Amino acid sequence: MIYSWQDLSQQVEVEVNQFDFSGKPAELYDPIGYTMRLGGKRIRPTLCLLAAQLFGGDLTKAMNLAMAVEVFHNFTLVHDDIMDEAPIRRGKPAVHVKWNRDVAILSGDVMFVQAYQLLAKGNPEKLSQMLTVFNQTAIEVCEGQQFDMNFETRDDVTAKDYIEMIRLKTAVLLACSLQLGAFESGASEKDAQLIYKFGEKIGIAFQIQDDFLDCYAKQEDFGKRVGGDIISNKKTFLMLTAMERADKNQSDRLDQLISTNSSDEEKVSGVLGMYNELNIPEITKSAMQDYFDESLAALDQIKAATELKQPLIELAEMLMMRKK
Amino acid sequence: MIYSWQDLSQQVEVEVNQFDFSGKPAELYDPIGYTMRLGGKRIRPTLCLLAAQLFGGDLTKAMNLAMAVEVFHNFTLVHDDIMDEAPIRRGKPAVHVKWNRDVAILSGDVMFVQAYQLLAKGNPEKLSQMLTVFNQTAIEVCEGQQFDMNFETRDDVTAKDYIEMIRLKTAVLLACSLQLGAFESGASEKDAQLIYKFGEKIGIAFQIQDDFLDCYAKQEDFGKRVGGDIISNKKTFLMLTAMERADKNQSDRLDQLISTNSSDEEKVSGVLGMYNELNIPEITKSAMQDYFDESLAALDQIKAATELKQPLIELAEMLMMRKK
Repeated sequence: MIYSWQDLSQQVEVEVNQFDFSGKPAELYDPIGYTMRLGGKRIRPTLCLLAAQLFGGDLTKAMNLAMAVEVFHNFTLVHDDIMDEAPIRRGKPAVHVKWNRDVAILSGDVMFVQAYQLLAKGNPEKLSQMLTVFNQTAIEVCEGQQFDMNFETRDDVTAKDYIEMIRLKTAVLLACSLQLGAFESGASEKDAQLIYKFGEKIGIAFQIQDDFLDCYAKQEDFGKRVGGDIISNKKTFLMLTAMERADKNQSDRLDQLISTNSSDEEKVSGVLGMYNELNIPEITKSAMQDYFDESLAALDQIKAATELKQPLIELAEMLMMRKK
Repeated sequence: MIYSWQDLSQQVEVEVNQFDFSGKPAELYDPIGYTMRLGGKRIRPTLCLLAAQLFGGDLTKAMNLAMAVEVFHNFTLVHDDIMDEAPIRRGKPAVHVKWNRDVAILSGDVMFVQAYQLLAKGNPEKLSQMLTVFNQTAIEVCEGQQFDMNFETRDDVTAKDYIEMIRLKTAVLLACSLQLGAFESGASEKDAQLIYKFGEKIGIAFQIQDDFLDCYAKQEDFGKRVGGDIISNKKTFLMLTAMERADKNQSDRLDQLISTNSSDEEKVSGVLGMYNELNIPEITKSAMQDYFDESLAALDQIKAATELKQPLIELAEMLMMRKK
């Protein structure tokens, strides 16, 4: 039987809910269970299991690696929420708010170790390779977060810098999740590289789409306020591309829209007008499509049965909102 | 040739100074080189190399593990300094002061990963064992830090709780450093356990001594102000033992000394008077000696040449200030 991504996502949810995150002192461990059980789409562990399935591996064994990436991802959220001073995570108080900053730092550190403990339960013959990609990914995720914070105050960020930042901050962990599942199942070096590329490219496509939807989603389909990135002057793919393509006159008008104290509605409609003038929606959709195509091309090259690739394609399409 | 602990400590210092900690973005990597090059006694990496030498291993290979524990130790200092709001580390501004809190959190996280990267360079056949002890130790160090923070506001802490806290916060990392060196050099399971025990017991003895010296060192030999722990109401081994041994009348007098607004000098001399009355100096020295003896007994049982044990004994004696 071939599991769909929905089946495996459900299995991850069950595993998370029955996993024992308790320990002493309670101040250290309670926030871990709390964070892990806030929900979320469980995309990363599901990708790990789908890759294990793709290469014919034992999903029970791959579950340790799936949990490793989910615990690691949640660790980054706990520390990022301190840095971003974000009070809410998935509709509930963030750890640094519900407990305090120190608890959030230290519980996060413990989660980081727990991710390595789970990783160490992987296929012993592949442990060295798995450790290498996991370490590299963990470092890159930190680099991505630092670049993201730096971008807020820099005024020389290019769309290319931005793509590199989202690659580091988001895409490489999707890629790593898939590659760990592939290693666990004994995939060839070549196939392990291809599945990594599949995850990396779909991750970049997904993040560009996130920027796109912030401007162009229908309010009823979108969790956040449409135009929120424009209102908060976020340096998105759309804004950075617009700035690069604008001539002197257009650039001045954009600067004025960003810096004046007009109402949120005027600012959003003004910027969207500029985006249309500069053909930003089409350029953005085209960039998304290119990364999406590269992603599927990598998957296509992998030596595995087509029907085992299907759940990965479906998850990719769901992420790109082409399928529910 | 047999290296002394001073030789190996010097080799670590050279390695730290020539190691390339640079990377991009600079905000993330500059604090790492800064922290690593603040100096310190390099006790943990030196222990790692001494254990590798004890079991006839290649010290060049063991240097990666030595660096792993030193980077890990410095990571804990960076995060602890945020939590403890400590502005100064080794006479220089702490990372969260010289840069900021967010940089300290994220640079610390990167150091944590770098420790794992260095660990992954260890003997491939022993990687799983090394990862297991390192993970366990990292978790325990976090638990120790959380217990330490909890103790500040708890009024039911016993001397036994305190010993367990210092075991977790300090002793297990000394033990782990030694065990990693032993694993690298192919020590037997039994000898790896004994060298762990050597480090664990000497670590506890060292921390108790730290409390003792805070009260009884000569000011000219002591880096900090003698009596500082008493002035700041720190729950040390001496204070907790005194509280446990005090009868009702003595207990009341101790409470009064702690809570009244007398001058620092009066408070210190009053508490030291109580300590003498309760025989605390002798009890403390005896506890230190017991842990020190247990430590050397473990070393004695290890199947290795006596002359290779000598540098470890000398480092232990230096730590216990019995030898320069």
